[in-house]
Amino acid sequence: MNDSTPTAAALVRAACELFARHGYDGASVRAITARAGANLGAITYHFGTKEALYEAVIGAAIGPSYERLASAAETPGPPLDRVERLVRVFFDFLYENPDLPTLMLQQLTSSRPMPEVALRTMQANVRVIAALITEGQQDGSVRPGDAQLMALSIGSQPIWLTLARPALQASVAIDQDDPETRAQLVESVVRFVRAGLATHPENLR
Amino acid sequence: MNDSTPTAAALVRAACELFARHGYDGASVRAITARAGANLGAITYHFGTKEALYEAVIGAAIGPSYERLASAAETPGPPLDRVERLVRVFFDFLYENPDLPTLMLQQLTSSRPMPEVALRTMQANVRVIAALITEGQQDGSVRPGDAQLMALSIGSQPIWLTLARPALQASVAIDQDDPETRAQLVESVVRFVRAGLATHPENLR
Repeated sequence: MNDSTPTAAALVRAACELFARHGYDGASVRAITARAGANLGAITYHFGTKEALYEAVIGAAIGPSYERLASAAETPGPPLDRVERLVRVFFDFLYENPDLPTLMLQQLTSSRPMPEVALRTMQANVRVIAALITEGQQDGSVRPGDAQLMALSIGSQPIWLTLARPALQASVAIDQDDPETRAQLVESVVRFVRAGLATHPENLR
Repeated sequence: MNDSTPTAAALVRAACELFARHGYDGASVRAITARAGANLGAITYHFGTKEALYEAVIGAAIGPSYERLASAAETPGPPLDRVERLVRVFFDFLYENPDLPTLMLQQLTSSRPMPEVALRTMQANVRVIAALITEGQQDGSVRPGDAQLMALSIGSQPIWLTLARPALQASVAIDQDDPETRAQLVESVVRFVRAGLATHPENLR
């Protein structure tokens, strides 16, 4: 797995688009190399296999979320404020990467096992949130409860609300392309998460 | 759309399995009729088109959720207790219908518009939850906020946690096939939702 050359990077970008649109099996080596402007042997040369290219695509798409969430978690301030920043950053990350939702959905519908890099990133992200919750439980600002499960309640909201974007627009007229609607949605989730974690109302803000 | 005869019902069941496994395009009329033990013309005879059969499948899979959530919402008791029952019932519904998550994911990855029946059910479900929230805001047990957006924060948790079931098991070792783990997860979400909505800690239980 080597995406450090321009051709390898172009292959990852092309494959990301095509895997998102057509799934792993629906995106042929021929179509990916053609879109990347590379020759037919380029995937073998740079990645070894289509499978390895897929892992590079998933890694490039999901991997950076960890760095973003961890940075938000490391900012100064009380745990609940850092959870809030993390939720905002997570929404930003998901909105900035329009191929990511479909790529994730394609992965979840396929019978292919989730690539190792995605599993490690999910695990690391859950741990970052759970560590903030544990810190808040220790200083008394967060109510008791299983920190890992509480972290999953938090993560579910940005993930599902961005994945289901077209369905939410068609069913309940929530248009996340509209910046004002998007801001209201993020604000509502942030308040729900703070309230869901906080011990006392005075911790809410 | 008529699934009132045994053959029509068998077609809906067969199509549900095959659409969930292979997607709309990947499930051929031939494969569906063969699995249903029906002749090749049965889909045309009973539903008119494969598209109409698909809508019947989605309706049969998602439609009943509304009745379940609405019943939970109509039980006696304070709004927060009814939200709690609704969340438990929603998890039950999702766990009882193993094809539903993949069917939903297949729908979300496809470029096909979400069938009307699914959109209407999503909308009705959001309204049921939002109405309970509004009732709680009126009696002072639920904090202020946009009731529809708060309803989406609630719904995201059972939906995403059941959709991502294999990924959660592989990444953070949460095995929802284990009844005890499942009960802990549901309990954690219920507590998160109550805390996320409640005005005062004394409303939490």
